[in-house]
Amino acid sequence: MKKPKIAPLLLKDVVIGGTFWSRYSELIRTKMIPYQWDVLNDRIEDAPRSGCIRNFEIAAGKAQGEFYGMVFQDSDLYKWLECVAYSLATHPDAKLEAIADAAIALVGAAQDDNGYVNTYYTVKAPEGRWKNLQHGHELYCAGHLFEAATAYYDATGKRTLLDIAIRFADHIDQVFGLTDGRIDGYCGHQEVELALHKLYAVTGERRYLLLAAYFINQRGQEPNYFELEQERPGYVEIFPGLTAADKTYNQSHKPPVEQDAATGHAVRAVYMYSAMADLAAELDDPALLAACDRLYDNVVNKQMYVTGAIGSSSWGERFTVDYDLPNNLYGETCASVGLMMFCRRMNALHGGGQYADVMELALYNTVLAGMSLAGTEFYYVNPLEVDPKTGPFHPSYRHAKPERQKWFACACCPANLGRTITGLGLYAYAGSDEGLYVNLYIEGSAKQGERRLDVTTMYPFEDSAVIKASGGAYKLYLRNPQDAPIVSLAINGQNVPVAAENGYYVLERDWHDDEIAVKFDISVKAVHSAPEVQGNAGKVAIKRGPIVYCMEEVDNSPLLNSYVLGMGSNAPDSAQLAEIPKGLLPETYALKLPVYKEEYAEGALYRTEKPSVKAYMLTMIPYFQWANRGANEMRVWVRR
Amino acid sequence: MKKPKIAPLLLKDVVIGGTFWSRYSELIRTKMIPYQWDVLNDRIEDAPRSGCIRNFEIAAGKAQGEFYGMVFQDSDLYKWLECVAYSLATHPDAKLEAIADAAIALVGAAQDDNGYVNTYYTVKAPEGRWKNLQHGHELYCAGHLFEAATAYYDATGKRTLLDIAIRFADHIDQVFGLTDGRIDGYCGHQEVELALHKLYAVTGERRYLLLAAYFINQRGQEPNYFELEQERPGYVEIFPGLTAADKTYNQSHKPPVEQDAATGHAVRAVYMYSAMADLAAELDDPALLAACDRLYDNVVNKQMYVTGAIGSSSWGERFTVDYDLPNNLYGETCASVGLMMFCRRMNALHGGGQYADVMELALYNTVLAGMSLAGTEFYYVNPLEVDPKTGPFHPSYRHAKPERQKWFACACCPANLGRTITGLGLYAYAGSDEGLYVNLYIEGSAKQGERRLDVTTMYPFEDSAVIKASGGAYKLYLRNPQDAPIVSLAINGQNVPVAAENGYYVLERDWHDDEIAVKFDISVKAVHSAPEVQGNAGKVAIKRGPIVYCMEEVDNSPLLNSYVLGMGSNAPDSAQLAEIPKGLLPETYALKLPVYKEEYAEGALYRTEKPSVKAYMLTMIPYFQWANRGANEMRVWVRR
Repeated sequence: MKKPKIAPLLLKDVVIGGTFWSRYSELIRTKMIPYQWDVLNDRIEDAPRSGCIRNFEIAAGKAQGEFYGMVFQDSDLYKWLECVAYSLATHPDAKLEAIADAAIALVGAAQDDNGYVNTYYTVKAPEGRWKNLQHGHELYCAGHLFEAATAYYDATGKRTLLDIAIRFADHIDQVFGLTDGRIDGYCGHQEVELALHKLYAVTGERRYLLLAAYFINQRGQEPNYFELEQERPGYVEIFPGLTAADKTYNQSHKPPVEQDAATGHAVRAVYMYSAMADLAAELDDPALLAACDRLYDNVVNKQMYVTGAIGSSSWGERFTVDYDLPNNLYGETCASVGLMMFCRRMNALHGGGQYADVMELALYNTVLAGMSLAGTEFYYVNPLEVDPKTGPFHPSYRHAKPERQKWFACACCPANLGRTITGLGLYAYAGSDEGLYVNLYIEGSAKQGERRLDVTTMYPFEDSAVIKASGGAYKLYLRNPQDAPIVSLAINGQNVPVAAENGYYVLERDWHDDEIAVKFDISVKAVHSAPEVQGNAGKVAIKRGPIVYCMEEVDNSPLLNSYVLGMGSNAPDSAQLAEIPKGLLPETYALKLPVYKEEYAEGALYRTEKPSVKAYMLTMIPYFQWANRGANEMRVWVRR
Repeated sequence: MKKPKIAPLLLKDVVIGGTFWSRYSELIRTKMIPYQWDVLNDRIEDAPRSGCIRNFEIAAGKAQGEFYGMVFQDSDLYKWLECVAYSLATHPDAKLEAIADAAIALVGAAQDDNGYVNTYYTVKAPEGRWKNLQHGHELYCAGHLFEAATAYYDATGKRTLLDIAIRFADHIDQVFGLTDGRIDGYCGHQEVELALHKLYAVTGERRYLLLAAYFINQRGQEPNYFELEQERPGYVEIFPGLTAADKTYNQSHKPPVEQDAATGHAVRAVYMYSAMADLAAELDDPALLAACDRLYDNVVNKQMYVTGAIGSSSWGERFTVDYDLPNNLYGETCASVGLMMFCRRMNALHGGGQYADVMELALYNTVLAGMSLAGTEFYYVNPLEVDPKTGPFHPSYRHAKPERQKWFACACCPANLGRTITGLGLYAYAGSDEGLYVNLYIEGSAKQGERRLDVTTMYPFEDSAVIKASGGAYKLYLRNPQDAPIVSLAINGQNVPVAAENGYYVLERDWHDDEIAVKFDISVKAVHSAPEVQGNAGKVAIKRGPIVYCMEEVDNSPLLNSYVLGMGSNAPDSAQLAEIPKGLLPETYALKLPVYKEEYAEGALYRTEKPSVKAYMLTMIPYFQWANRGANEMRVWVRR
């Protein structure tokens, strides 16, 4: 395996602490992981049935019954195992590990002799294996198995799940390809590609890398595999009515290396882009790298919400066209998790801080919004405005729920959230031969061999961080957040005059318990959309550092569009923004903004009378904390 | 039959003239009627297949084949015949009458001996008659047959279609009711009720009136008929998956007399309200009258668009909840036609001018928008904003087409438009023993016995009308339009100081070629929504008289939300509105408004830089003329 220039640190070498993230990581460990395990075992009464573990028991011959759930139900267990693995890496827990080991044994028992494992096809449709790649999700589930297996091996050193993965990967490698009568197809839902890269990284087996490259390169070749497949004998519909007509949906409209703009199902897209970035780095492929750059640019600069959400339409949970960013978006939690994955890889490829800026934006807004403060309710979609009174009546608004839910029939998001937060150490830092990269400022510590950083900060809620560095001579790359630029840097009390380059302040010295004090500018800003986003015309989003704020009815009143910042088009946007009171919700950094409120007299539905205005202090809370106090109206964009 | 206090004049006694309406009525006569006839005969190559005439031929045994189209396909012919009847009433045309007579003979040939006629059930599902009242539309089609029959009899004096209708009505009267083992149900789509009232008015047969009352009274009684029906043997689904669970959809959630708020499918609703108003008048039923008043108030003051459109959601083409008026509405053309029908009846019930105000609003905006200037393309839905680039990607926007279409698989709207415009004389005037009501100011003439009015006007596009009245002593009721109040009245050059009452100026004298000069205030107004309509916050609609204006990309630029009236919240809304140039489109009264345009520098998707502003003259055109120059962005509501 080629040594990457920049790579995440080992998870066990990163400690995530501080009151903010400790609370989340404890929520995941003590609430979400046990809760999700209960869900997978169908033990939560008022949550939709999962059937996931039961499916494995049936496939393993340990129970009788019929398959239940989505064709990709297995992946819920794999994502849970990956989440558990990351948790065990930093917080050993013998009881949890025993539960995971038993689950892993169950996966092994459900595996065929030839390595194939997928309970849907073993229990429900044994004749259908590999016959409906477009919708069957077999390779998608395999990918999540590989991700779980490599994480579990990294965390515990145990090989059982890794060996299951290797057997399945070897089987896939024999089944797929362009030679010897193999299947020349690829999966309708990308995931196996980036997972094969992980398997390659852990095992060093180059066949897995080449198999990932095959899947990427073969995608979108003409004639289109999915169009051929659906005409073949043995093809059975899984999602009735869905055909291969819309090739952009699963990004098979042309080879990935030729793609210019994000299109189709957002999760599929960013999982594929992540794999493309892996391969571009590993194979030194300039064409693939250029495609990654183009696609990243399109996503971030043309199709991303101010919250780091992506996928604007509920129709196919998809990217649509540039600047089509209505506030009743889809914005699947998984898509922003995938965007973080893509950003991490782009950051490693280019060593550029701006990729971590977007990663941070998605994390602190859409991804964190995906779970309740209690840790046991979840959002699948993350709209920027909700009106509980009218939403249910409109197809493009109905998916936007005013309250988080206990579980989903399609339960991809909760587990994706869990693995992202327990794996946060993989995003927070990176290392190279030359030094250490601080990508997310989070309280805790990080090690790379002798090199060690200890970070004390409440960033991005407070404006300072203190980093103690030790371990000898190396470069320390401190990201200069676009959303919260560094305004001063001092080492051991001495101001350091340095310029940021490529999004980082680079400090190089022989580090021996030196203390770096960093100050950020987290002043409140009013953010405008490019004018092409017509729904945001005349409105601004309020940000403090990377934290996007929203209005909720419960803090103000209904009819949130009655509030107007009223700063005029030529006054500084932030001039009238006020002090920050704390404590509205646990750990909430709420904002109070002087605005005016338009009030109309009681009257006709349509009238020529203008509204009167009165001064009002508008309360805004961080977007990720919305909908924790019952169903109520919420809006991110405020009239200016 | 009880003599109504106020009733429409006979259609043949009303002449509609003037350049504006002559052009429309000629379009209907020379383009739309022949075009729709060709469509019904499947002779228009690039329009969706209709099958309507063919279905009748098959049912009549004159052709072989299978039924084609919707379960209510027959109604397309009946609405066409009604439209033809109204046209013949004012513009005799032997060739057209011969075509209509042949079509009527075909209907007669398709009628069973017992009077039943419906080609779907005769050709496709003979076992299913009256077994799925919720979705079968048998009584709905019967209603359109009765409307056509009465209109054709009134226009031509020919009884053939009327006799067909009478035979069917007698059959229905024997099949339905609460006694003798009859079917105690009612139709899932109201229409037969108001049609039976028309049949009663023409024939004097009181059984038809009582049958209409039965259908209204039985609706919504518990246990719910549709819930029982769908469990019975012989029930066959027509629209798979649709059950009786959502009783508000077809207004069977409670008896009509108890209903307070408009709910469910908008066309069903207003057709029912029209029948309720007929019965309230005919039966002097105060409870039914009170229900009509409540429902009218709810529709007009809580759930109606500024264009007179109703039905805000594409989900079930329905009313939703008060103030839920997003600009990507459904606003079916038929629903506004039905609203005009309801308004006409409420006007007759109460003699109040405000009902005709709403009738006028719906007519000049949504109804006229339903057809192209060429007369051969149609809108089914009438949104208040369209962006052709993004709309197709979103389920709640996809129904809003940027261009009118040649025909529809569900082709209710074009024929409904046709019968409304050819029957416009029924809306323009009304008469009572005491006098004549001018409800729509339209060039032409009207007679009631000896009484005669001759009107010269280009209202509502110009601000004056001259009415020559003759025929002796009677009261002349001149509507005082809420949208264009009368500012002066002169008889034979002498100003008349009168006060409006109940929405009318009442002039009483012995009329002998007296000339009344009327001046209206049609100054341009900026109209605000009640604040509960959150999507219109910070915006106004521009109206001139009853004419609502819109911006189109083709006259200005894309990104129409970049234009801001900028009159400030305390300046008079109309202060900066400018002169009206003509001629942008044929007969278009365009507006030029001084606004400012916000311009952003090229830049990031999100930025703290504010836009610059520059002065701009915004062109607006009447809403009903939008989308006649290719697909382009359109918006009604303008930022203020």
